[in-house]
Amino acid sequence: MKLNIGIIKGDGIGPEIVTEAMKVLDKVGEIYGHTCDYTELLLGGASIDVHGVPLTDETVEKAKACDAVLMGSIGGDAKTSSWYQLEPSKRPEAGLLRIRKELGLFANLRPAVLYEELEGACPLKPELTEGGFDFMIMRELTGGLYFGERKTEEKDGVMTAVDTLSYNENEIRRIAKRAFDIAGKRSRKVTSVDKANVLDSSRLWRKVTEEVAAEYPDVTLEHMLVDNCAMQIVKNPKQFDVILTENMFGDILSDEASMVTGSIGMLASASLNDSKFGLYEPSGGSAPDIAGKGIANPIATILSAAMMLRFSFDLDKEADAVERAVDQVLKDGYRTGDIMSAGCTQVGTKEMGDLICERI
Amino acid sequence: MKLNIGIIKGDGIGPEIVTEAMKVLDKVGEIYGHTCDYTELLLGGASIDVHGVPLTDETVEKAKACDAVLMGSIGGDAKTSSWYQLEPSKRPEAGLLRIRKELGLFANLRPAVLYEELEGACPLKPELTEGGFDFMIMRELTGGLYFGERKTEEKDGVMTAVDTLSYNENEIRRIAKRAFDIAGKRSRKVTSVDKANVLDSSRLWRKVTEEVAAEYPDVTLEHMLVDNCAMQIVKNPKQFDVILTENMFGDILSDEASMVTGSIGMLASASLNDSKFGLYEPSGGSAPDIAGKGIANPIATILSAAMMLRFSFDLDKEADAVERAVDQVLKDGYRTGDIMSAGCTQVGTKEMGDLICERI
Ligand SMILES: CC(C)[C@H](C(=O)O)[C@@H](O)C(=O)O
Ligand SMILES: CC(C)[C@H](C(=O)O)[C@@H](O)C(=O)O
Repeated sequence: MKLNIGIIKGDGIGPEIVTEAMKVLDKVGEIYGHTCDYTELLLGGASIDVHGVPLTDETVEKAKACDAVLMGSIGGDAKTSSWYQLEPSKRPEAGLLRIRKELGLFANLRPAVLYEELEGACPLKPELTEGGFDFMIMRELTGGLYFGERKTEEKDGVMTAVDTLSYNENEIRRIAKRAFDIAGKRSRKVTSVDKANVLDSSRLWRKVTEEVAAEYPDVTLEHMLVDNCAMQIVKNPKQFDVILTENMFGDILSDEASMVTGSIGMLASASLNDSKFGLYEPSGGSAPDIAGKGIANPIATILSAAMMLRFSFDLDKEADAVERAVDQVLKDGYRTGDIMSAGCTQVGTKEMGDLICERI
Repeated sequence: MKLNIGIIKGDGIGPEIVTEAMKVLDKVGEIYGHTCDYTELLLGGASIDVHGVPLTDETVEKAKACDAVLMGSIGGDAKTSSWYQLEPSKRPEAGLLRIRKELGLFANLRPAVLYEELEGACPLKPELTEGGFDFMIMRELTGGLYFGERKTEEKDGVMTAVDTLSYNENEIRRIAKRAFDIAGKRSRKVTSVDKANVLDSSRLWRKVTEEVAAEYPDVTLEHMLVDNCAMQIVKNPKQFDVILTENMFGDILSDEASMVTGSIGMLASASLNDSKFGLYEPSGGSAPDIAGKGIANPIATILSAAMMLRFSFDLDKEADAVERAVDQVLKDGYRTGDIMSAGCTQVGTKEMGDLICERI
């Protein structure tokens, strides 16, 4: 099979970690008989440096012509980088928001997994996480406060800023269906998170998720208020299977959840449209402080590539092989600095990529 | 001094825990020569039961005539209670939202404190919390998504729901000043939390907090994105002194922070207006599952009464005495069930109130 993959190396540690993921993809191709055809795309700071804007129309078109896009990470140090002298709509992150919208990537999947071997890195006490946990956040990615109308204006001499949180039932239905589909292949529980005691958009959210739930009799739906969910992720992460929520709540809760695993350098993510196309990226940031040092953890990006094989190319066997190789490398005691613990062997970015390739 | 205090017993465990806090206030009055004059006010489910609505105009007027209000907790079990058959604007929580607005309670203070004696209850590993932590969340309480225009309507046969997040510079300035004032009396650091890479309201928030910071040269201001803050509260709670944020972010982050302490039954809160008036209540909910059993932890309400003495009546000495009595009772090994640990003596709600009174 020919895999037509867009590559956004991105900023900070992006190029280093993407390089390792490409190595892994090539190894998979070699073994399973696929050819990876890469198209390099510029987004974020890297695009500002070349084109003056974080995303060009040409890049959008090129991305649309790919079957899937693998991305490193976007952005730099907001305090020191010249990118942040630009007005907000021209900064690196604006490119990311725009590409999500242009490609219709409404379904953002962020796994929160506690690896048995990495329990030492988890900030929670062992009795709370015994046996590990493994849940998935399904975040709506192209609606809500992120894409509503906004304005800042003077009224009677006073500056006022307004953002709008809007959802229609179709937007809610399609993301809810995705969550139920995925839950059906997992532990068959969807926790829909909203603030229905305050927001109209949350009340519509609740109504539509209930309608969707009726179509999935074998999946349980529970509703949880967002403030309570922020507590439950800390108190009892084992209770969750799939968390379904809107864009802003998902942003906050998925970062909280990733920290609760203690190993953000291990966490993949996928942003999917209504067919097979997806943008795959690590959950963590561009870590400008360690960029270029060869010490960043490439595993999140490698696992993102595995998600790509699974979701965009239906290559489950190949995705399994990558995930197993990662498990094996951990079992064999290899660690990058961010997840290092006593008795393990510390390796760099490139070495980690090689070790995973060897195990595929 | 005559203390003119409104009392909202509320729902669930509310009446039990407020009774203990009143006992403590009376004891303080006896020792320090004050008279507490209580006016009972109905809010939430208790008001629905009597008046059919969660808050009457008469109660609003009566509350305004008090110097401060002490409250238990509002609401019942949303799955089973008949209050939740009513439309959203008539449910218990709607009364709480309305009284905040009517009384102009824009500044919500929620301490997140890890008590040395209760480290066992904290979900975080001891190495992350060594030496304890003690920070304060300053949440804006009468603006943002909570009070913006909202509507649900059909457009071209599709239901759409819209909520509005709006802040003007005056609303931001007054809450920011409060945060800096309080930080000045603490460790002189304000962490202002926003989503300035996406929201216009956050960009205005950032601009105004910087203007306010210029008036407080001895207090440091740092900005943090809300998703990052959700991570940092888990990763390193010791870094915070005062977290300043808008209404919805504050709702989520303060609940997350309360869970990170592991002892939500210990956490007070205050909602203040622009003068000395305040509404004081425990951070936790109404816990309908344990209502009437005499086992709820009254300490959060008792500490809320201490905040009332401090903020509304300037009775610092008296507030200190209550806080010291709570510390002493913990040192003496008494615990309610929620914070019980090996080697301690388990007591009920009333006994805990008595033990604290004895130590004042
Ligand atoms: C960079 C930022 C705009 C983005 C978001 O808020 O969606 C990021 O935090 C994320 O979660 O992917
Ligand atoms: C009950 C609810 C409306 C309220 C809020 O969201 O403000 C509560 O969660 C709180 O934090 O006091």
